[in-house]
Amino acid sequence: MGNWAKMGEKGRREVRLARAFLAAAAEPPAPALAGFVARHGACRTVEVILRGKAPPDVLAEVEARYEHVSAEQLLEATEAAGARLVVPEDPDWPGSAFENLAGAREVGLPEVAEPIALWVRGRADLTAVLDRAIAVVGARAASGYGEHVSAEFGHGLAKAGFTVVSGAAYGIDGAAHRGALAAGGRTVAFLACGVDIDYPAGHSRLLRAVAEQGAVVSEYPPGTEPRKHRFLVRNRLIAASGRATVVVEAGARSGAGNTANTADALGRPVLAVPGPVTSKNSVGCHGMVRSGRAVLVTSTEEVLEAVSPIGAPSAAEVSGAHRRTDGLHPHAQRLHDSLRGMAGASADELARDCGLPLGEVRALLPELELSGFAVRSDRGWSIAR
Amino acid sequence: MGNWAKMGEKGRREVRLARAFLAAAAEPPAPALAGFVARHGACRTVEVILRGKAPPDVLAEVEARYEHVSAEQLLEATEAAGARLVVPEDPDWPGSAFENLAGAREVGLPEVAEPIALWVRGRADLTAVLDRAIAVVGARAASGYGEHVSAEFGHGLAKAGFTVVSGAAYGIDGAAHRGALAAGGRTVAFLACGVDIDYPAGHSRLLRAVAEQGAVVSEYPPGTEPRKHRFLVRNRLIAASGRATVVVEAGARSGAGNTANTADALGRPVLAVPGPVTSKNSVGCHGMVRSGRAVLVTSTEEVLEAVSPIGAPSAAEVSGAHRRTDGLHPHAQRLHDSLRGMAGASADELARDCGLPLGEVRALLPELELSGFAVRSDRGWSIAR
Repeated sequence: MGNWAKMGEKGRREVRLARAFLAAAAEPPAPALAGFVARHGACRTVEVILRGKAPPDVLAEVEARYEHVSAEQLLEATEAAGARLVVPEDPDWPGSAFENLAGAREVGLPEVAEPIALWVRGRADLTAVLDRAIAVVGARAASGYGEHVSAEFGHGLAKAGFTVVSGAAYGIDGAAHRGALAAGGRTVAFLACGVDIDYPAGHSRLLRAVAEQGAVVSEYPPGTEPRKHRFLVRNRLIAASGRATVVVEAGARSGAGNTANTADALGRPVLAVPGPVTSKNSVGCHGMVRSGRAVLVTSTEEVLEAVSPIGAPSAAEVSGAHRRTDGLHPHAQRLHDSLRGMAGASADELARDCGLPLGEVRALLPELELSGFAVRSDRGWSIAR
Repeated sequence: MGNWAKMGEKGRREVRLARAFLAAAAEPPAPALAGFVARHGACRTVEVILRGKAPPDVLAEVEARYEHVSAEQLLEATEAAGARLVVPEDPDWPGSAFENLAGAREVGLPEVAEPIALWVRGRADLTAVLDRAIAVVGARAASGYGEHVSAEFGHGLAKAGFTVVSGAAYGIDGAAHRGALAAGGRTVAFLACGVDIDYPAGHSRLLRAVAEQGAVVSEYPPGTEPRKHRFLVRNRLIAASGRATVVVEAGARSGAGNTANTADALGRPVLAVPGPVTSKNSVGCHGMVRSGRAVLVTSTEEVLEAVSPIGAPSAAEVSGAHRRTDGLHPHAQRLHDSLRGMAGASADELARDCGLPLGEVRALLPELELSGFAVRSDRGWSIAR
């Protein structure tokens, strides 16, 4: 990114063409490609692919399409759609929103690989608009209660200066966007299709308004049709963009539940709005609260509380005041610090990282688990959130 | 209690007269009197009081009334009201329901002192009927939603073989009783007045039905009028009787919240039913869940889960399988065991109890607090529930 200014018009255009090519060649999420691009850059990746020298896992992600992609045509279609392409090398790439996706990919969560590029409708600076964002999501088949609450939350969060991120679907999503728009605030819609396609069709006016007061964003090139799986894949961008994800209404199995799980996996707070126990639309929200995956929230104020002092470090963090770990034995603290940096690590790897004898690490880990500082999974040890 | 059979008709009548006298002489809760009776027996306590030899704290609790009480007349009034007096020396005294009140009094929670005696309308054996009970409580000014859910819970819990305990008030209480009655199950109403007074008057038919299928119970002698503070005092009997307390609807400040706090203080699970965030009737329930005082429940099944295997010790308890404390250092375990037996203890007292050096106890306590095994309050250290 620092090289962008030095790159010159020609170099910038090349990177843009390369990113467009790669984004169109691979169906997201493309963890192998994303990893390769992160290491070698977009232009070099394209070169390697075109020369037939790509590693097998990268090739597997692009081989179905790359011979059919014309990056030049894509950029023309982008312009024709009144959209623009934003790439990680751009100054307004919302890096802070998506670097946790790259981090998660690196520690073995391939399903949340970072996007290769984003198509944007709307003039808002993406970095600025996603700097203080909260995701508000929920069921399409929402109740009147759910839509009312979603609009209230969208309104209240926008008034408080937060960008309301959602998926532009009927029901909860649409109400959240509308609430934010009504407050004169900013809102961003992530689509599961190209930004040139108004989906759902009934929301074309809403999408136009969102583009005017924020942005309509997609990692899918113009012309990409919505597909069922793309909604789930798209959800990770919503989860990653929000400092917290508020689930207003969700049935027992729902896309909103999927967004919430991703937010949780990324270490972002999941907040769930309760509703009548007689409503099937609130079953998912209540389940999240019961299982401890979500914190119950009943108002905008409680959402703001969860993302605390406008996202600034909390008072305790600033003053270095009391932390939960303060009472831990120094060795346990060291191990805890290693856990913080390494999700899904073995005792071996942790011992190496913190420099404590393996035997001691093996003894300390169950203690940290017991006291709620560490969690064990199939992938190994991680810090407890 | 073991002496009851040997006591003979005359002895039994004397104990009954003594208990009736004491219950009428002191306004509940009467912690000094309850403690004195627990140590010296009811007859001896009456003797001491009448001779003017009662300790000052006991005297303070009875002096306003004892000269005006006629135990004989009380027993006559009891019979006239179609009620009976049940005392701790009786075989059907629901000891297991109330011994935690005595325990709490002993460790310095005087506001939950055990009752001196109980007046009962209804033929049910109190021990049997309170053996498997769950409290269902909530706002008087309930919503239609709240009454519906309360009746559903009352019905479902009664069907599952649990006695539904509540306070016979309008709104949530009444609906819970009615649900249990409709299921042909058992239900118990604790009153804040004498059992000869139908309060609220509009519930006189309901109270008659409760007495027929369960019991109407009060620690207040016949003729005692309901008073505001008596509702709060009565709430501790509801909280103590239930293996769990379900709060169906509660405003920001409510009697149900008071019952929930008492249940919590007694170490009984508090379960709260969510509702629309737009309803002021659910504010209290949501607040309890947010603060961690209550677990969110949406169905009878989830309530039963919380009081799991029909109140039998859990599988883990039976098999001696993994416990949370298994990973603690042996000294920490010893201290933890002491905490279990001593609510509100000082480090000094704990050191004496577990036999560890005071310095070590002082070092271990914050560690146990940090890992969620101990809690510190104004009264001292207690085990974390």
